Amino acid sequence: MKTIKPLREKKDTAIFLIYCPDKQGILATVTEFLNRNNGNIIYLDQHVDREEKIFYMRVEWELHGFTIPTEKIGEYFDTLIGSKLQMVWKLYLSEATPKMALFVSKMPHCLFDILSRYTAGEWDVEIPLIISNHKTLKPVAERFGIDFYHFPVTKENKEEQELAELALLKEKGIDFIVLARYMQILSEDFVSHYPNKIINIHHSFLPAFAGAKPYHAARERGVKIIGATSHYVTSDLDAGPIIEQDVTRCSHVDTVQKLVRKGRDLEKIVLSKAVYKHLQRKILVFNNRTVVFT
Amino acid sequence: MKTIKPLREKKDTAIFLIYCPDKQGILATVTEFLNRNNGNIIYLDQHVDREEKIFYMRVEWELHGFTIPTEKIGEYFDTLIGSKLQMVWKLYLSEATPKMALFVSKMPHCLFDILSRYTAGEWDVEIPLIISNHKTLKPVAERFGIDFYHFPVTKENKEEQELAELALLKEKGIDFIVLARYMQILSEDFVSHYPNKIINIHHSFLPAFAGAKPYHAARERGVKIIGATSHYVTSDLDAGPIIEQDVTRCSHVDTVQKLVRKGRDLEKIVLSKAVYKHLQRKILVFNNRTVVFT
Amino acid sequence: MKTIKPLREKKDTAIFLIYCPDKQGILATVTEFLNRNNGNIIYLDQHVDREEKIFYMRVEWELHGFTIPTEKIGEYFDTLIGSKLQMVWKLYLSEATPKMALFVSKMPHCLFDILSRYTAGEWDVEIPLIISNHKTLKPVAERFGIDFYHFPVTKENKEEQELAELALLKEKGIDFIVLARYMQILSEDFVSHYPNKIINIHHSFLPAFAGAKPYHAARERGVKIIGATSHYVTSDLDAGPIIEQDVTRCSHVDTVQKLVRKGRDLEKIVLSKAVYKHLQRKILVFNNRTVVFT
Amino acid sequence: MKTIKPLREKKDTAIFLIYCPDKQGILATVTEFLNRNNGNIIYLDQHVDREEKIFYMRVEWELHGFTIPTEKIGEYFDTLIGSKLQMVWKLYLSEATPKMALFVSKMPHCLFDILSRYTAGEWDVEIPLIISNHKTLKPVAERFGIDFYHFPVTKENKEEQELAELALLKEKGIDFIVLARYMQILSEDFVSHYPNKIINIHHSFLPAFAGAKPYHAARERGVKIIGATSHYVTSDLDAGPIIEQDVTRCSHVDTVQKLVRKGRDLEKIVLSKAVYKHLQRKILVFNNRTVVFT
Repeated sequence: MKTIKPLREKKDTAIFLIYCPDKQGILATVTEFLNRNNGNIIYLDQHVDREEKIFYMRVEWELHGFTIPTEKIGEYFDTLIGSKLQMVWKLYLSEATPKMALFVSKMPHCLFDILSRYTAGEWDVEIPLIISNHKTLKPVAERFGIDFYHFPVTKENKEEQELAELALLKEKGIDFIVLARYMQILSEDFVSHYPNKIINIHHSFLPAFAGAKPYHAARERGVKIIGATSHYVTSDLDAGPIIEQDVTRCSHVDTVQKLVRKGRDLEKIVLSKAVYKHLQRKILVFNNRTVVFT
Repeated sequence: MKTIKPLREKKDTAIFLIYCPDKQGILATVTEFLNRNNGNIIYLDQHVDREEKIFYMRVEWELHGFTIPTEKIGEYFDTLIGSKLQMVWKLYLSEATPKMALFVSKMPHCLFDILSRYTAGEWDVEIPLIISNHKTLKPVAERFGIDFYHFPVTKENKEEQELAELALLKEKGIDFIVLARYMQILSEDFVSHYPNKIINIHHSFLPAFAGAKPYHAARERGVKIIGATSHYVTSDLDAGPIIEQDVTRCSHVDTVQKLVRKGRDLEKIVLSKAVYKHLQRKILVFNNRTVVFT
Repeated sequence: MKTIKPLREKKDTAIFLIYCPDKQGILATVTEFLNRNNGNIIYLDQHVDREEKIFYMRVEWELHGFTIPTEKIGEYFDTLIGSKLQMVWKLYLSEATPKMALFVSKMPHCLFDILSRYTAGEWDVEIPLIISNHKTLKPVAERFGIDFYHFPVTKENKEEQELAELALLKEKGIDFIVLARYMQILSEDFVSHYPNKIINIHHSFLPAFAGAKPYHAARERGVKIIGATSHYVTSDLDAGPIIEQDVTRCSHVDTVQKLVRKGRDLEKIVLSKAVYKHLQRKILVFNNRTVVFT
Repeated sequence: MKTIKPLREKKDTAIFLIYCPDKQGILATVTEFLNRNNGNIIYLDQHVDREEKIFYMRVEWELHGFTIPTEKIGEYFDTLIGSKLQMVWKLYLSEATPKMALFVSKMPHCLFDILSRYTAGEWDVEIPLIISNHKTLKPVAERFGIDFYHFPVTKENKEEQELAELALLKEKGIDFIVLARYMQILSEDFVSHYPNKIINIHHSFLPAFAGAKPYHAARERGVKIIGATSHYVTSDLDAGPIIEQDVTRCSHVDTVQKLVRKGRDLEKIVLSKAVYKHLQRKILVFNNRTVVFT
């Protein structure tokens, strides 16, 4: 169903995401490296955490005219700069469209939002497959023309189902996973295959109301604002690095059912914003916290 | 594609939307009328505008056990109460599912959001058709299984095209119209057929940046917040009664393109919230302003 | 320093705050009682919690021309209506200006905000005294012309200090207490003297980050939004009925120090909003939750 | 009344605010200049407007150990870098505390908020005087111990009064002016003495409801959100570069009087945020728009 003209125009660029111990001159060193080799910088943002003494940077430049061959950029950079400055760095090329898998259960709102953006061409991504523990949303997948795989997970078969899922994800070349209201907890082993590459949406303003039934808990506590939180999944439930949060007002008139309804809008927007930031390579994770560049 | 189980449970209820000159005892009079005839009130909200001296009310009650026959409620109410108190009132029955027409142009985000909610069963509505001045979004309509009508409008043929549209809308029994980023201005005559029954989304925080290209104007003016506004269409462009507004922060880093992207999320949510309020019969219009009950 | 002309004009009115088990006709019964005795209603709001089956109401009417003598209103209402419907009700007269005590420690921002509104005449309240466990803010109290009492509280003397405070509060006829960043925990016994009459501001979005050092905890968790919460104090720390909450965005650039700075603006506004709602008699508490009328 | 210990600790630093035509290597050039002369950078932020091709930068570094004498920094920088790159730049030293004049009329809320922050030591600023066209707020000035000057302005005497004000401002060494709900329009001549150095608060979400009585206009238009806007004053009324905006929800229940009340909280916070950004030297103005660094 990808029939609508993409909204984005893709330039041939490369991106470095970097962090390292802070010291004088890092920024100058990196920008000189790009300038000297004729790389036209089109985005540069950096942040220094002066308490932790960590330097964070995202820089994007045009590959057209860049004098280092694309396949050698990483090697040169690491030899000349990265290893000397103890950098943890990643290089991304705009030409490589990432592959995303969707995990869903029964609720369709996040799935619809993601597939709508996908079909509308809002994102530079491929979605080769949807995985679910229920068949409920199969018709949605079919209408959008995405392969749908049903892995009914039980306490007994969880381990083997996850192995089968991992095999399928590997076969399809999946780069990252989005849990679009997937109501299962992934095992620590599963998560370890996709570190900071599984994005979840939790239907509360974390750390408030972690775990099950947050809208019931919110109603019970009588809060005046509810929220939603997207985060990378770690082995610690609902405790991974937060990417994006948003909130909306509620009051005594809001029953649990009304909170659920209000929450749906928050959830889908917050999740999609996190996915977009991830796709733009604008997120760095350190110490269970994110740096999200603007 | 309406394959997903509806989220709502429909009770057999009736709703009065009322306004009239304020005086003592109106609320008591209406609630007594319902109580005396064994109507179990499940929602009641009222507002008195003490400056304009107008009383507004929305009351919903269960028809099960109500002692006045459903088809006689309006007559009895008007005779016994409404005409004496100079009430403008409307009676809605929950059993009647309203029919909505969508008007679109080329941008799909609001359309996707509405069709997603429709398919997910979030709303009690029927959508018999989509009308557009372009064929761009026909594939979207097809995938969701909605009839799509193409009315290419030019300066020359506008009058006849609108007449043809009106005929089609009448034939399909359309109750109200949603302009989901429809980039044409409807004629005063067209609008007069659907007073306070055409909902538009404008991509600015009205009354700022009415008219064309609001994101360009917002960038030019250097605002720090952008918004979206849903309103009923009147013959006065972008000046009809406002139903819902929302905003999001922006800054000097936001180019027009980025504002457009941010704005899409606002637009679709604000429009869908307005449609939902309209479907719930929670909006009263007086003096070009809305009363929107919670 | 109350030199500025009050912003409000005070009408001679009475207010009922009521809750009771829901049943048909309560609203009509109360409004008829007022109408029949020539009480001109200038505010009426009600809410039915259909899950808990509780009816909540706030009604305000003009005493001028009301045919029941002011001192008899409570008795008549209870005899004719309240006791029959198992109502918990309170009657407030606009002529009685409530007396508020402020408890502070070292941080001045909430104190300044409250005294500024007081001096500007924003609120109908008297502030006979400020109590503190430190002398830091004594100069502020003096400049605004409010009596300042220093009660240095230690683990050892807490019980006797609280008794002395209670005696002073009683002597001064204090109706309710506002903890304007008072960094001590009040004993269960102290709290029991002012049930739902002690308003606290907690510098987090409760229930997230209850207890000490919430901005440190927020930074540590990497949240993208921080908040503040005003609530009535109960014997359970930071767990009383929430009156008002608000939030603001933060990011990886916000150190603890910056969060503290951002938080100050939230705290003072959220606390003052809660105080204003309390002064307007717009808050009902049931089941550790508030109903806050608009 | 500056009796409370300042919240800030002042380091001995210098700040460059720079903009110039964008080209490769500017960032590297500036940071190298500081690094080579042993300047420890503690803040650096930059932005490139790729549409206008303008480079913006704010950099702050510690003067301790910097090898260029403080009084020579500007000269060296301009000779070695600034003039070659066509930079518009300003140098600020943290040791110089700016002097601010307040202009007020009758409404005290913004004045109280500013004086409270001043007294609490939130800001690094001196406030030598308050100027007003009315005597209403003189008692407030006196209580906070600030000199108050009454300049009653009429249509006839405006020119001479402004000249007298300018003379006084010059005599007191005022660096910038804050209009804290000053209800007079300053003449073009007056404004020309303080370009981008007069901060105003307008009580609407500009460009909506520019001019007089914005809350009346908001009520009339039936908006669902109201706002406040702080901006630099230019000769074009309410059209200067916007520094900060914020909004709050309203509804049909909000009379003009209630909007005014809600608006006061917005106004004072938005104005104080703008003043703080100005004091931090975080605002650049180009083309009637601001770049506000975080």
